[in-house]
Amino acid sequence: MDIVLLGSGNVATHLGDALVQAGHRIKQVYSRTAAHAQALANRLDAAVTADLTAVDAQADVYILAVKDDALAAIAAQLRGKQGVIVHTAGSVDMAVLAKYATDYGVLYPVQTFSKAKAVDFSTIPMAVEASGTTAWERLEILAGSLSGYVFYCDSQQRLSLHAAAVFACNFTNHLYAIAADILHEHGLDFDLIRPLILETAQKVMAHQPKEVQTGPAVRNDVRTMEKHLELLADDPALAHLYRLISGRIG
Amino acid sequence: MDIVLLGSGNVATHLGDALVQAGHRIKQVYSRTAAHAQALANRLDAAVTADLTAVDAQADVYILAVKDDALAAIAAQLRGKQGVIVHTAGSVDMAVLAKYATDYGVLYPVQTFSKAKAVDFSTIPMAVEASGTTAWERLEILAGSLSGYVFYCDSQQRLSLHAAAVFACNFTNHLYAIAADILHEHGLDFDLIRPLILETAQKVMAHQPKEVQTGPAVRNDVRTMEKHLELLADDPALAHLYRLISGRIG
Repeated sequence: MDIVLLGSGNVATHLGDALVQAGHRIKQVYSRTAAHAQALANRLDAAVTADLTAVDAQADVYILAVKDDALAAIAAQLRGKQGVIVHTAGSVDMAVLAKYATDYGVLYPVQTFSKAKAVDFSTIPMAVEASGTTAWERLEILAGSLSGYVFYCDSQQRLSLHAAAVFACNFTNHLYAIAADILHEHGLDFDLIRPLILETAQKVMAHQPKEVQTGPAVRNDVRTMEKHLELLADDPALAHLYRLISGRIG
Repeated sequence: MDIVLLGSGNVATHLGDALVQAGHRIKQVYSRTAAHAQALANRLDAAVTADLTAVDAQADVYILAVKDDALAAIAAQLRGKQGVIVHTAGSVDMAVLAKYATDYGVLYPVQTFSKAKAVDFSTIPMAVEASGTTAWERLEILAGSLSGYVFYCDSQQRLSLHAAAVFACNFTNHLYAIAADILHEHGLDFDLIRPLILETAQKVMAHQPKEVQTGPAVRNDVRTMEKHLELLADDPALAHLYRLISGRIG
């Protein structure tokens, strides 16, 4: 398909790479920041613009991979385009596009993207929502060309999926950061728990988390929890978090 | 080395398997529960006892992989044995063994063990502490035969390592469970975030967690956080946890 990609952040970059790899043509990249637009356009062998009024009118799909707050304003500028207009946001209702397009939808890849690391799109679940048959058929083909795991997901479900992802990814990463701080404070390297972190994730690839819960809280091992709380005593907020999560588990 | 293994839980089982694989001989397995002791002894081709007074007196190392609370009582029964007495607990001071042995120490594998899943010991960091040169030399060799990553760790450091592991493993698994609950409540499968969970863990294999923090909290994306809190409104305790962790990240 011929695609216009709006945005130049992590999602736009990773998605752009995957689309090119899947054989699609990125006709044009738009970004408010001309330098970012140019860098991504070069990477994707695409034309480029930093001017919304100059966006190509002949694409099959317009993908808005921009900040949530910018979606409505950018969609407004795409009024009258023939292609399907989609956004990629986890927490924004599809209806944000309704005023500005006939055929529209959402293409939400359930993954975390960072500049630091390439990702394999073929295993990323793709949540698709569409305004009608035309948009659905095009988006299903597009998503299916990227990933083996495409599913229908309405806006409310997508919001819940995004909230779940915050717990399983963003908050989890913060727990890793807490662990790194504790280790650092006692002269120990974060390397020491890297195998444990990987094993903990790998374990739930084949099991439900509740089935494989381990640790002092689930054993109601009060003495060990007290020792940990004593260790954390100089950081009452952290000790509170320890108590709170232990209480939920136990 | 000739080893007596005391305990028959997850740590004893995985450690026993790894020791046999590394070419050591498990002379005897002890467990309070005769059936458990027998099952593990069969697996390790070892003799067996459920009677502490019948523990073999001729081993190089006695490994106590039992509940923390049982350590002192079992060590007391090993008084007079010639070998090195070690425990495998994260949060118990080495001193618990001092009254009962001349040469003693700790061998703490920094990993989570469950019946459900085999683990590769060669990549598990092994925290070693020893009462003196004799114990250190023997434990260093023993730990080095299991893993490529052996390091000295005193009892206070080991406690901090164990607390860090609780955040990075046990609490992380609970966040996975919360995510699974949210998905289930909205008719979505836990499968949808399994790739995200794995990617989140893999990302910190090569980076420090703080460098790769993503999500609405670190972007101070208040609107998205409010949408999530609205979604969680029927579970105030969970909404509180969401606010608490977001506040720490942001």
